Amino acid sequence: MKDRQLLSEFANVINSDRYQYTESDVFLKEGMQEKVAVFDMYFRKTEDGGLAVVSGIHEVIKLIEVLNSTSEEEKRKYFSLLIHEEELLEYLVKLKFTGDIYAMRDGEIAYPNEPIITIKAPIIQAKILETPILNIMNMQIAIATKASRVSRAAHPTPVLSFGSRRAHGFTSAVDGNKAAYIGGCATHSNIVTEYKYGIPSVGTMAHSYIQTFGVGREAEKESFDKFIKNRRGENNPLILLIDTYNTLKIGIQNAIDSFQDAGIDDSYEGTYGIRIDSGDLAYLSKKCRELLDEASLHKAQIVLTNGLDENLIRALKEQDVAVDSYGVGDAIAVSKSNPCFGGVYKIVEVDDKSVIKLSEDIIKISNPGFKEVYRLYDKNGLAYADLITLVDGDKDKKLLMNDDTIELMDENYDFKSVSLAGGEYTHKKLTKVYVKDGQITKEYLKLKDIKNSRDYYLKELEKISTERKRLENPHKYKVNLSHDLKKLKYKLINKISKQIKGEI
Amino acid sequence: MKDRQLLSEFANVINSDRYQYTESDVFLKEGMQEKVAVFDMYFRKTEDGGLAVVSGIHEVIKLIEVLNSTSEEEKRKYFSLLIHEEELLEYLVKLKFTGDIYAMRDGEIAYPNEPIITIKAPIIQAKILETPILNIMNMQIAIATKASRVSRAAHPTPVLSFGSRRAHGFTSAVDGNKAAYIGGCATHSNIVTEYKYGIPSVGTMAHSYIQTFGVGREAEKESFDKFIKNRRGENNPLILLIDTYNTLKIGIQNAIDSFQDAGIDDSYEGTYGIRIDSGDLAYLSKKCRELLDEASLHKAQIVLTNGLDENLIRALKEQDVAVDSYGVGDAIAVSKSNPCFGGVYKIVEVDDKSVIKLSEDIIKISNPGFKEVYRLYDKNGLAYADLITLVDGDKDKKLLMNDDTIELMDENYDFKSVSLAGGEYTHKKLTKVYVKDGQITKEYLKLKDIKNSRDYYLKELEKISTERKRLENPHKYKVNLSHDLKKLKYKLINKISKQIKGEI
Repeated sequence: MKDRQLLSEFANVINSDRYQYTESDVFLKEGMQEKVAVFDMYFRKTEDGGLAVVSGIHEVIKLIEVLNSTSEEEKRKYFSLLIHEEELLEYLVKLKFTGDIYAMRDGEIAYPNEPIITIKAPIIQAKILETPILNIMNMQIAIATKASRVSRAAHPTPVLSFGSRRAHGFTSAVDGNKAAYIGGCATHSNIVTEYKYGIPSVGTMAHSYIQTFGVGREAEKESFDKFIKNRRGENNPLILLIDTYNTLKIGIQNAIDSFQDAGIDDSYEGTYGIRIDSGDLAYLSKKCRELLDEASLHKAQIVLTNGLDENLIRALKEQDVAVDSYGVGDAIAVSKSNPCFGGVYKIVEVDDKSVIKLSEDIIKISNPGFKEVYRLYDKNGLAYADLITLVDGDKDKKLLMNDDTIELMDENYDFKSVSLAGGEYTHKKLTKVYVKDGQITKEYLKLKDIKNSRDYYLKELEKISTERKRLENPHKYKVNLSHDLKKLKYKLINKISKQIKGEI
Repeated sequence: MKDRQLLSEFANVINSDRYQYTESDVFLKEGMQEKVAVFDMYFRKTEDGGLAVVSGIHEVIKLIEVLNSTSEEEKRKYFSLLIHEEELLEYLVKLKFTGDIYAMRDGEIAYPNEPIITIKAPIIQAKILETPILNIMNMQIAIATKASRVSRAAHPTPVLSFGSRRAHGFTSAVDGNKAAYIGGCATHSNIVTEYKYGIPSVGTMAHSYIQTFGVGREAEKESFDKFIKNRRGENNPLILLIDTYNTLKIGIQNAIDSFQDAGIDDSYEGTYGIRIDSGDLAYLSKKCRELLDEASLHKAQIVLTNGLDENLIRALKEQDVAVDSYGVGDAIAVSKSNPCFGGVYKIVEVDDKSVIKLSEDIIKISNPGFKEVYRLYDKNGLAYADLITLVDGDKDKKLLMNDDTIELMDENYDFKSVSLAGGEYTHKKLTKVYVKDGQITKEYLKLKDIKNSRDYYLKELEKISTERKRLENPHKYKVNLSHDLKKLKYKLINKISKQIKGEI
């Protein structure tokens, strides 16, 4: 048993539901394993109805790297204990990914129903990747998107993501802080995230540190003095936590005394200041600001924490809170108000034939066919609409390529269609090739620079209008199907409708 | 960079916040590293105000096993890139855990403010474990407790946990399904959970499987036929998903036809039946039950899924839903309605001196001292109250040991105190020793049998009164401080209060 607790990287590839393998068994026994399927990973809605921030493509492509570089021996170690169908076991031990993966990049801004990832591969390869891909993407997009909301609320005050203790397990803490950074957080506190992704971690001070020196005023003062004495210099931050006993009566006094005793003032080369983690943050922060200013500690920073989220931060701003940065834990780490992102992975084509799922729930009807996504910008450079086209033989796509006049058609309401004249818009293809015939492309390398993904996101965010970025009821962004895609979709729906009505 | 993406088990030990190490630097420079600190891991509240289910102790003790067995070379690989303080780096490379860990067992039922884990160790050892311990416990207790709520709502109908795709990353999927199992789920769907913990995984059928055969009635029928043909026998479950196109007009007809064509009926040795994943589950399930019964498929099971949680399941029961098992994803996998469990890790003693944190927020005041937890049962064997005592020199603990008459005192309201006469109650110590002087005890081995932890939970659940198990506003369970603990706590609070008032 002990040995089985130690999982290798390959376990990430098979972090999957049993039925993916049960069904692969049927495909294999029926000789269907060479059928080429296309699957889309997309989501149906966001918390606020607005944008989502893509994160996790890096780790998804990493799955392919791991799958294709894992030895048969290693694969057999796992599968021999899990797969009881002999033929399937041998097939899986030899399995490598030989298909294509298309995706938006990390840091991309995405909207509902757009394929974020499209996989085109022999059916078993594409099928067994469903659960691990969704497991990665749902966590990371949830966190990146929540980080985007929180950091937009706090802007221009920076947000520190520090919720590792509340994140859901190791991967969520380590990769989640990376996603939070891509989604706009200024920094994070996790040292494994720093190790794995090269994004520097930061931190302030904990209550338990202060309590290690005993109880009460003198003990707190000693803890501050020792901290400053040993940490000063080398641009080290000196942020003292002042609410262990009483913020105004004890903590802020001790902090000011400690800074003054140590000669720390506005000439200190690093950042210095205080953190408040309880009580009425608006009131306490302003009182502390006054006291710090009276002591001529004008550059002393105020860090605020304590269950903050985008709504509390907006309320604090309305009260003219005195703040230099916010630390946010739970709200981002588990995307607290919307923990379940709800991304799905749906089959849309088999051997060049489009397929559809016609659910009892209208929102669950999938868009068929092998597709890609374009973003159209208006003359001011603002994103105007996204267009989902078929990859092959799509007439709207051709118009786009030629910068011709194009009609953007609302799927449900004809009267909402609009026409964009050639020259009045520009476009960008959001779908990139990350894996081609099982070979990982150079696009993947770009994702390894996490700061680059964050910069990309921030730059794209500037191209979204203010109304579409607001946190409540953002102005709806158009995501349109091309004429050919809509035609294909409703042809399939009509076929099934007739079957339901008993007409065919 | 590539190398740093491949993390070894040791990364779990340092899945931590930067400040734990910054503060360790101060302790080391001040020569405080031999100070022995006691930290408690506990939580302040649950979603419903009632019980929580402990899970994750197994993985916490595993951290100690990994820390103490990792080579200095391996530790240096990480720390040399992360720790820039030379003395601290060398200290960490040599660090092993030499202290004690006390904890409730996995499967234990716990209440607010009770120490679930107590660590007594040299300060740096105890400090750097804070974040990784909370990261493990907050995820697993959240999921186990939510699984408990959902499976209590569904009882006696079994609940399958199958939310890996919505779980927050790899660890949350793999360890989370284990936690869901401990918390009462009958089974789960993740094959890595099966590999790692030996709990068999199960599954039914996906829409994409059906769509691989094309679009519409005939394609669905073919997919059912092929599934039955290739999977029948060996007790394999044959559960057909019937809502891809239309549950009543297409799916159930195809399912009945496929079963009958293949000669699958109530004599089939495994389970067989249908799954419905959309639409009005109450209505559709009853209609399908009628149709199955008319076809003499009385033992055909009905599995219901689609965003179910404890409340929807209760509503379905009220409507006399026809169901044999529920599949639950999001609600359990991310503990959707309460994703942030909020467990904390607080210092309570340093070198045998008790410490306290007196927050601006009353609920954040910690209970000082080195403590343990007892459960008292009434004459009917039902849990009556929990008592938190000091480990050393506690008079109530002594009364308990002698089965003497004991007064259970409410912390806030004297008039609520009750007296339990000797012979009228029995007691059990919930706190067990998992690590002593850095050595892992035999108690740890018991946690490796996950089914045993689940059985323990189910047995303990029977000892909780119906009123205390109900899902809304459960009858409050008494968690009392011993007289000596209360005295200690208020002595410390009074000392600080006087400082705040300027009296000392």
